[in-house]
Amino acid sequence: MDFKEKLSNIVHENDSLVCVGLDIDKEKIPKFLFTTSKDPFFDFNKSIIDATKDIICAYKLNMAFYEVLGLEGFKLLEKTVKHIPREVIIILDGKRNDIGNTAKKYAKSLFETFNADAVTINPYLGIDGVKPFLEYKDKCSFILCKTSNPSAIDFQDIKTQGKPLYQIVAEKIKDWDKIGCCGAVVGATYPDELKTIRGILGDDIPLLIPGIGKQGGNIEKTVKYGTNSKHEMTIINSSREIIFAGDKEDFAEKSKEKAELLKKEINRYR
Amino acid sequence: MDFKEKLSNIVHENDSLVCVGLDIDKEKIPKFLFTTSKDPFFDFNKSIIDATKDIICAYKLNMAFYEVLGLEGFKLLEKTVKHIPREVIIILDGKRNDIGNTAKKYAKSLFETFNADAVTINPYLGIDGVKPFLEYKDKCSFILCKTSNPSAIDFQDIKTQGKPLYQIVAEKIKDWDKIGCCGAVVGATYPDELKTIRGILGDDIPLLIPGIGKQGGNIEKTVKYGTNSKHEMTIINSSREIIFAGDKEDFAEKSKEKAELLKKEINRYR
Repeated sequence: MDFKEKLSNIVHENDSLVCVGLDIDKEKIPKFLFTTSKDPFFDFNKSIIDATKDIICAYKLNMAFYEVLGLEGFKLLEKTVKHIPREVIIILDGKRNDIGNTAKKYAKSLFETFNADAVTINPYLGIDGVKPFLEYKDKCSFILCKTSNPSAIDFQDIKTQGKPLYQIVAEKIKDWDKIGCCGAVVGATYPDELKTIRGILGDDIPLLIPGIGKQGGNIEKTVKYGTNSKHEMTIINSSREIIFAGDKEDFAEKSKEKAELLKKEINRYR
Repeated sequence: MDFKEKLSNIVHENDSLVCVGLDIDKEKIPKFLFTTSKDPFFDFNKSIIDATKDIICAYKLNMAFYEVLGLEGFKLLEKTVKHIPREVIIILDGKRNDIGNTAKKYAKSLFETFNADAVTINPYLGIDGVKPFLEYKDKCSFILCKTSNPSAIDFQDIKTQGKPLYQIVAEKIKDWDKIGCCGAVVGATYPDELKTIRGILGDDIPLLIPGIGKQGGNIEKTVKYGTNSKHEMTIINSSREIIFAGDKEDFAEKSKEKAELLKKEINRYR
């Protein structure tokens, strides 16, 4: 089964475009876990996954939060990925970028060693940095197009012949999708740009959208401008607001409530 | 001691601008190591370091080659970094990029957990993705400016008001260096661009230059255009041609010969 089919299946099964970002953080996970559990980080992730797996379409693991824990972090990443049900999309968000042989190693690492369904990639090096990922035909490479942060404008809005860089990147993504499955990362914080990018990419290219919630992205506009004509092919990520919703014994239940609320709000506009 | 002082010290002590890229690769390291050694990858790195440490200024470890080995790779990375003499520059080449809290985690991981002197960073997200690294005042962040690969032109040469993107990135690097120590990655395969970038950056910002040897970069032009007015502040990387110079018991000796040749050729033009 290829990525788009897998995504479509789980979106229909759980009726959800919600992606939960499992960005573990020692300072934010419930403190009691450090006294009650021998493996607090994994038990945290496991509880969140068990509570939310039927109301989401994907989990996104930002590699930085695991890498910072050193060896333990990579064990945790492996264990967490294994605990996610097979039918759910796993995105390893590493924003990798390198050339030739090195990009091949990253692709192998993320898709084979860590078993991701999808990854995030930075486009600055051009097609050389993307192609080795696209050779994994059943996987998906989400390429940074317009990121959600304020300084996204530093370079992404630089104009050439009246057209900003992020549009040129979107056009390349559309083109590269002929080689292998591409997606685009577009921040919910830039709704007009999101609309433009969906226009360039058409119906068939998935978007990964961070930036709702604390970062300020509007859900109605995100759904309206980000989804395709069937109101899908879009993965809307929320991390901290879901996973750190509670800090008591019922933290997983609180996460579930937050994820359900988000799912409902998104579906209201689909 | 800050990064520039450390770099300057080792460049003078070993009279060398050579950086050896420890890009371990199962298919390329001497086969006999897998029968004679219990820890072939580490013994390979250890032998190369022991043989070359007096004729180089830096080692660069491309994270991809370690990541692909999974948990073992991270143990290897830690052990290798510990084996490098304290006075030699350690560059962890991960081309990381992310925003806010996540970039902080990457910075902490690379500078604290893995103890790098310098890292490589992709600029596509703007200052938000760079600033958390610059807060480590004694370290250095090498920002991708003009990469060595053919498709570097896909985006890096896009022009705005007649000026290509890599020049705008170089100007930002010059500006960001006021916040914390910045360097720039510029491929030896683009000598004219290298000259332009050194011109923008002035005397005080270090360059990390890949792309000599197999990729086709010319050493004379690299030294002439890349170094500053004191013929330094430049780190010239070579990976495969040095570390895979031999595949017999004398492989480390062969690496040493290659590194010495490169050092001499570079110094001829300094």
